[in-house]
Amino acid sequence: MRVLLPDLPEFRDLAHPDEHGVPGVTFSHYTRTEVPDGSADGAVLWMANAETRRKLIQAQGLKWVLTLTAGIDHVRNELPEGVQLYNASRLHDRAVAVHVVAGMLSAMRGLHRFRGAQGRGQWTAPGSPAASGLETLDGRNVVLWGYGHIGRHVEDFLRPFGAQVHGIRSSTPDHERDRLLRSADWVVLLLPSTPETRGIVSAEVLGLLPPGAWISNQGRGNLIVTDDLLAALQSGALGGAVLDVTDPEPLPEGHPLWAQENVILTPHIASTTTDLVHRGAMLTRDFLLDLLQDVEPPGLVDLSRSY
Amino acid sequence: MRVLLPDLPEFRDLAHPDEHGVPGVTFSHYTRTEVPDGSADGAVLWMANAETRRKLIQAQGLKWVLTLTAGIDHVRNELPEGVQLYNASRLHDRAVAVHVVAGMLSAMRGLHRFRGAQGRGQWTAPGSPAASGLETLDGRNVVLWGYGHIGRHVEDFLRPFGAQVHGIRSSTPDHERDRLLRSADWVVLLLPSTPETRGIVSAEVLGLLPPGAWISNQGRGNLIVTDDLLAALQSGALGGAVLDVTDPEPLPEGHPLWAQENVILTPHIASTTTDLVHRGAMLTRDFLLDLLQDVEPPGLVDLSRSY
Repeated sequence: MRVLLPDLPEFRDLAHPDEHGVPGVTFSHYTRTEVPDGSADGAVLWMANAETRRKLIQAQGLKWVLTLTAGIDHVRNELPEGVQLYNASRLHDRAVAVHVVAGMLSAMRGLHRFRGAQGRGQWTAPGSPAASGLETLDGRNVVLWGYGHIGRHVEDFLRPFGAQVHGIRSSTPDHERDRLLRSADWVVLLLPSTPETRGIVSAEVLGLLPPGAWISNQGRGNLIVTDDLLAALQSGALGGAVLDVTDPEPLPEGHPLWAQENVILTPHIASTTTDLVHRGAMLTRDFLLDLLQDVEPPGLVDLSRSY
Repeated sequence: MRVLLPDLPEFRDLAHPDEHGVPGVTFSHYTRTEVPDGSADGAVLWMANAETRRKLIQAQGLKWVLTLTAGIDHVRNELPEGVQLYNASRLHDRAVAVHVVAGMLSAMRGLHRFRGAQGRGQWTAPGSPAASGLETLDGRNVVLWGYGHIGRHVEDFLRPFGAQVHGIRSSTPDHERDRLLRSADWVVLLLPSTPETRGIVSAEVLGLLPPGAWISNQGRGNLIVTDDLLAALQSGALGGAVLDVTDPEPLPEGHPLWAQENVILTPHIASTTTDLVHRGAMLTRDFLLDLLQDVEPPGLVDLSRSY
């Protein structure tokens, strides 16, 4: 079996004849600009640009592609017929869930506002508790829109904080979905980007949320109609937003979202940890060992499903 | 029974003849500047300045004082002999614990740094995961210095995140304390301020921590020798600090702590929530009902103990 891998030390280690290695596989490594010639059984996609990715996907004899991302929208349309696609949600689920809760707690405890005061060197103790805007999560309704593995981690994390967690699945009827949104203190978007989910959070949906509700987007930027979000923030209808993804992305200089005080922005790093490449290599190793032992590895993408 | 209460609507409600009221008690309300004349059985202290507090504590016939704070250092030295002191840690424990975890997660996910980039309108995606400095709490050693009710809440909150939580009590032998500090990724100070705990975190203690460790102070500002903390931050030995309390407090304009990027500062609001006054009034109500039924209320302070 010949496999195309990213040219990173953590992936080169898979060829070592020790307990970290995978015996019986020939590895060839691609860089940002060069893809090795020749046929290959599989390709592991990560941090490849569009052109490199296209070359990898079109390798002769390719049977499978493993993308070390959770999303698949960068691959699905280019995949040759008969090539199986695997994703790596499980590589990202837990870190994303940690990031979701970090953003929620930071917002409830006003850390983003106090950071501004810190920059100005100001000790801004609130005049009274009632005027503080500070809360905990006790009794808060948290609606997870997209309720898979990330959602279950989020639920585990939030339980001790006393939050009430509710999930919306693609099978949730519209009236039930709307009922949940109408009582939401937080809506957390954990959806992939598909034709069905693009722009799913528009003025109409934002209008269902109670005054002061917060929205958190850790899925894809284009789930939200950015102009509608901005309008809801500027009118004060929405309490705030925690955004790890945006539309457009990266958010360009001078975009009005930058200046919204109650928007907490991070540059698409929800699943990033210092050991992410190492974890990606270990996931690749487990994936290959499954294949070698004729076990179906986790992560096979059903290209007909939306979420 | 005559009781002196703060002049706030939530406390005035205690005189109402409904289910929120406390029958059989005469209430008199003090303001920031005026304390009613006459003898009193008890006084409930909250948001009173030093002079008002002194007048309250010296009311004729006083048998008990309930301070709706967790700390007692503002009362203990002025208390007349024979007057029992009760504190209200339980009013603050849970919110403080939430605040502790908010600060930890915010630091691990770099939210304070990204907030700075947001102010400059910059999408600062890290060059590589390894260079991101972003982490979760999986496998992290968290040492709670002062291990009471707040600590137990923190432990409950952190368990699902995979952190290893260790407690230091006043009874913990020095060598065991030092062993815990030497392997700490996080040290969370939850100590009261007493003659024994003042300056307990000095250069010597900071020197025990592994490189890159973080410290969180949610106890009292003077637990830490501020100059020693600054030196450890400026040398890069310490990863950062989350401070809800400082010494001096409030932190004056131009103080060098303001400018430390990896210091996350909040203005002593760890236990503040918008419903804090309401919760304080409800705690007072339960306290008085206990007294009326000859039940010993929780919170009696043993003035001989330090922590």
